[in-house]
Amino acid sequence: MERRALVGKIEASFRSFGFVPIDTPVLEYAEILLGKGGGETEKQIYRFTDHGGRDVALRFDLTVPFARFLAEHGPELPLPFKRYHIAKVWRGENTQRGRYREFTQCDFDIVGSDSPAADFEILLLIRNTLEAIGAGNVTIRLNHRGLFNRFLEQIHCRESSVDILRIVDKLAKTGREATLQSLSDLAGRDAAERLLDYIEVRGSFEDTLDRITEAAGGACPESERLASIRRFMIDAGCGDRFVLDPSITRGLDYYTGVVYESFLNEIPEIGSVCSGGRYDDLAGLYSREKLSGVGSSIGLDRLIAAMESLGRLRGQDSYALAAVACVNEARGGSYQALAGEIRKQGIPCEVFPEAKKLVRQFVMAEKKGIPWVIIPGEKPLTDPLTLREIAERRDFEALSLEKLIGIIQGTNP
Amino acid sequence: MERRALVGKIEASFRSFGFVPIDTPVLEYAEILLGKGGGETEKQIYRFTDHGGRDVALRFDLTVPFARFLAEHGPELPLPFKRYHIAKVWRGENTQRGRYREFTQCDFDIVGSDSPAADFEILLLIRNTLEAIGAGNVTIRLNHRGLFNRFLEQIHCRESSVDILRIVDKLAKTGREATLQSLSDLAGRDAAERLLDYIEVRGSFEDTLDRITEAAGGACPESERLASIRRFMIDAGCGDRFVLDPSITRGLDYYTGVVYESFLNEIPEIGSVCSGGRYDDLAGLYSREKLSGVGSSIGLDRLIAAMESLGRLRGQDSYALAAVACVNEARGGSYQALAGEIRKQGIPCEVFPEAKKLVRQFVMAEKKGIPWVIIPGEKPLTDPLTLREIAERRDFEALSLEKLIGIIQGTNP
Repeated sequence: MERRALVGKIEASFRSFGFVPIDTPVLEYAEILLGKGGGETEKQIYRFTDHGGRDVALRFDLTVPFARFLAEHGPELPLPFKRYHIAKVWRGENTQRGRYREFTQCDFDIVGSDSPAADFEILLLIRNTLEAIGAGNVTIRLNHRGLFNRFLEQIHCRESSVDILRIVDKLAKTGREATLQSLSDLAGRDAAERLLDYIEVRGSFEDTLDRITEAAGGACPESERLASIRRFMIDAGCGDRFVLDPSITRGLDYYTGVVYESFLNEIPEIGSVCSGGRYDDLAGLYSREKLSGVGSSIGLDRLIAAMESLGRLRGQDSYALAAVACVNEARGGSYQALAGEIRKQGIPCEVFPEAKKLVRQFVMAEKKGIPWVIIPGEKPLTDPLTLREIAERRDFEALSLEKLIGIIQGTNP
Repeated sequence: MERRALVGKIEASFRSFGFVPIDTPVLEYAEILLGKGGGETEKQIYRFTDHGGRDVALRFDLTVPFARFLAEHGPELPLPFKRYHIAKVWRGENTQRGRYREFTQCDFDIVGSDSPAADFEILLLIRNTLEAIGAGNVTIRLNHRGLFNRFLEQIHCRESSVDILRIVDKLAKTGREATLQSLSDLAGRDAAERLLDYIEVRGSFEDTLDRITEAAGGACPESERLASIRRFMIDAGCGDRFVLDPSITRGLDYYTGVVYESFLNEIPEIGSVCSGGRYDDLAGLYSREKLSGVGSSIGLDRLIAAMESLGRLRGQDSYALAAVACVNEARGGSYQALAGEIRKQGIPCEVFPEAKKLVRQFVMAEKKGIPWVIIPGEKPLTDPLTLREIAERRDFEALSLEKLIGIIQGTNP
């Protein structure tokens, strides 16, 4: 499979769930893109003064443009609105020196429903999409920000929640000891140990849910929501793909409900390939209407790297499956007619334009990764054909067109 | 069909001929994008000074980035290299005031072959692609710049060729009289009349070729090339789609050989939806290696407008073909399991997350353009199902899943 085919499969999966693509402008006024972002964002955004003296920027993610899209189109949109967006974004690591990075993001969201069914749909769509592209079995680790906050109240650390979330988010990177130290510095040794106990993953989804519900002060809407989502998983027959992991917090401020990360079981060390969560009010910056939603983002570059190291993705887009060699340049029209018959059978087929020596045409096919070369006769559509299998350096001779197509399609020995 | 499906069919057509997609950065140094462009280009380019004080710009076409790509990757590329590129470009109509337009271009080229078979392949690919997307029959009008130049020598106007080409290029817009006047001012009345006679379309491809060959001083490599291309058309069985039209010149300076424009027979007044030509040396600005090629560009916005006015394209991307209504929110997991069975049959199916009144869910489906709503029982996977046909306000009751899928697919009355 190729990169483009991979993206095509991801899109097909989104479409099968009724998600529609949207598009937004690459270039916006900086004040619109920055909004309340500030801080980290401001350092990374790629920003200019245009020749009209206006302060503009290239989008640095697809979330902010989506928020703006919602504010603009909200009233006409059928809610819940399910969209996906696969497009480029730009970040400057050090815009003072004019450096920037251009990469592709892949976001999908349901807005306008606060239902746990919407949370579950996003989780199911992550699982289905990753498995549909051939990434093998996945494990999706989820948690609930609100339940975590209730627990922080129980241990009197609610005011430090932003800092605590950031420290916990880095647990996998920094390790247990360093995390304990940072948390102790912030909240005292006792609270730090209770925090580490809370975020530890042990036992089943149900056991963990019971334990953290108790630690957070007992049953509450947040624990009920996790229980609903769990019931949906079981009913849909995919319970074994999901782990309740109280250490998942996600760094970003706007998440308020469930949050999750997704790992490929064959290559978990590469990190989460798809993450997201529920937010209360995404369009709030641009609109008075409150739109809650739930969404996720596939880390396409990381996913592609993972698929490549699993040997399931070719680095390069390939050329045709077959090529018609050029024996006599005057026959160019008939060669195209012959290639047309082969294309009709679903076989991408190119036509070599110049009557170079056959061995040079075979080398060209090899360089392009084209496995089959057809050597036509003087009357390409009616004379018997020769088929060259490039890898084996083997010729099949005196073939009818039908037989030749059968060999290429592997239905004929 | 939707816009995205249209672009997908265009890509599939390119792939079937062995063309591969390439990608290039959106943002480049202005000096790289501008190169020898100057003039018109300079006025349209969207250009900034970044925070590092560097002069950068957004790409304004896909030709210049392709030239740069060739200069960079030329030595590794298997020649002839066949590529396509569908991506956004930016032009500022008046960059002093910071206005810009963002739109999508769609280019395809064969570089590294000077053969008439490559010229013909691009022409055939235009015809096949336009017909494959359902744009109906097309007429592709072609001409040869080099032959035109030979004719200009015959009438002693070779030095004015750039101006003459520009005037002739506007013939359809300005009309015969105004064109005659402009040409007379430039070259004198006699030359102007001979020019108008030369560019008139009359008679068959073969008649026209004989006439303009004679006017250009007799048989020459350029007339031979047109004759070869014509033979290829006949041999490939698509001769009736092509017209030799000596008034086609294309405005752009870099074309040196065949040039062409393509019109939809059902709506020719919309203008050319795909134009291009052969160039001698595209990468010359960036590389010492000379790479000749032939290419074309689909005017996607114009083509989409044409398809819409022919009623063959919906303006908006549509949602799913079916939706599972929510009767009991606790059944969300089973609803997804049911939808999963329907998706397996190739039917995009969404799941409504909230147990609103059924009539409200029907309204939502209508708003989204979803034609079928499935009303599940208490046990969605085993209980009989009801299917609502939204447009007809009609229910099909007590259906098995198999029967329901048959109705949606239209294989069951």
